[in-house]
Amino acid sequence: MTKPTRADPHEGVRYLTPEGAIEHTGTWTVGSRAGDYVFVAGMRGIDPATNTLVEGDEARVMQGFRNMQLIAASEGARLQDAVRLTVYVTDMGKHRPLVNKAQEEHWAGGPYPPRTSLEVASLNQDDIFEVEGTFYAPQGGENGGRDRD
Amino acid sequence: MTKPTRADPHEGVRYLTPEGAIEHTGTWTVGSRAGDYVFVAGMRGIDPATNTLVEGDEARVMQGFRNMQLIAASEGARLQDAVRLTVYVTDMGKHRPLVNKAQEEHWAGGPYPPRTSLEVASLNQDDIFEVEGTFYAPQGGENGGRDRD
Amino acid sequence: MTKPTRADPHEGVRYLTPEGAIEHTGTWTVGSRAGDYVFVAGMRGIDPATNTLVEGDEARVMQGFRNMQLIAASEGARLQDAVRLTVYVTDMGKHRPLVNKAQEEHWAGGPYPPRTSLEVASLNQDDIFEVEGTFYAPQGGENGGRDRD
Repeated sequence: MTKPTRADPHEGVRYLTPEGAIEHTGTWTVGSRAGDYVFVAGMRGIDPATNTLVEGDEARVMQGFRNMQLIAASEGARLQDAVRLTVYVTDMGKHRPLVNKAQEEHWAGGPYPPRTSLEVASLNQDDIFEVEGTFYAPQGGENGGRDRD
Repeated sequence: MTKPTRADPHEGVRYLTPEGAIEHTGTWTVGSRAGDYVFVAGMRGIDPATNTLVEGDEARVMQGFRNMQLIAASEGARLQDAVRLTVYVTDMGKHRPLVNKAQEEHWAGGPYPPRTSLEVASLNQDDIFEVEGTFYAPQGGENGGRDRD
Repeated sequence: MTKPTRADPHEGVRYLTPEGAIEHTGTWTVGSRAGDYVFVAGMRGIDPATNTLVEGDEARVMQGFRNMQLIAASEGARLQDAVRLTVYVTDMGKHRPLVNKAQEEHWAGGPYPPRTSLEVASLNQDDIFEVEGTFYAPQGGENGGRDRD
């Protein structure tokens, strides 16, 4: 007998439009769920209330992580469920310390997920920081989707 | 009784060499399948017929998506099965609109997958655009690989 | 009857701290395991013995791959189990040949995983090369975690 405690993997990809997330502009959405993983698009320090960039470098970096967190949370993933972060900045020396500080606060002292930090030539809206996160959030019940006889 | 309707996850990673794809140059291949996911290498606007860059920025961006699409399709993944795109351009202001336009055509008006857009310092062959896509394409039969008794 | 040959997917993400890996500095860890996948943070040519950059471009690139390999291996993933590599360099013309050469050695002539190569503006410590790898390393026994009756 099959007990379908796990969401059918054949439902395919589900694109996410959680309440409170930033509004996307252009041909993309803020995140996806496929199987046990949640993929969040690169998030920047945009205030979802106004859909404009937050003022101040430190506040902006904080907001970027907050935006990512909200989207992940809408699928049951906590920051502690991040399997990978890729951080893009436009000034490594200036912004990397802000990223470290924001993560210390968001992750409450750690442990922290794997991270790759890159200085790129430019970001959208001439922004300074963007973070792309992948999360693990298994679906289904206690037995992890395995059948029980 | 076990009905092995799902490909054995222990078969490991399978590297893809679909007919009609561009020819890789160097130490890489165009894509991989592992479990329920398909990973396509960064694709640029190379014409697979000649293995040279397509002329014209707009046409080249279109071709890049087409190259990605073909590789994904070889494993049963449609563009609608993309879980994440990362788009690399060398001029955000100039190329991002072309990317949006190409996606509108390829995705037929949406919905669209999560996307991170980055301006990098340079791409191979001094190219202007590259897209890296990850897809979800569960293997196996109707019951999603779960056993039936 | 359930034979729990597969690690419970609900154990969540596990952050990796394998012996012999480089020491991370800052708010990150070197890798993670979630489900059947292993995610390795961007690795550079740091000597784990001294935690300082290896001298010489070619040796440094080689070391970066070696660092990635060690972390993947700690979870049972070989280089042949890589589903995707993203390679970041600061001079495409100068460093890409070194990457190709390092991969030829590490992968013993191939086949090679999908790879995206990007020239970024800068890397941490003004480094020249970084590689980010994702691996497939299914957990559990011969029957791939499926129940057997």
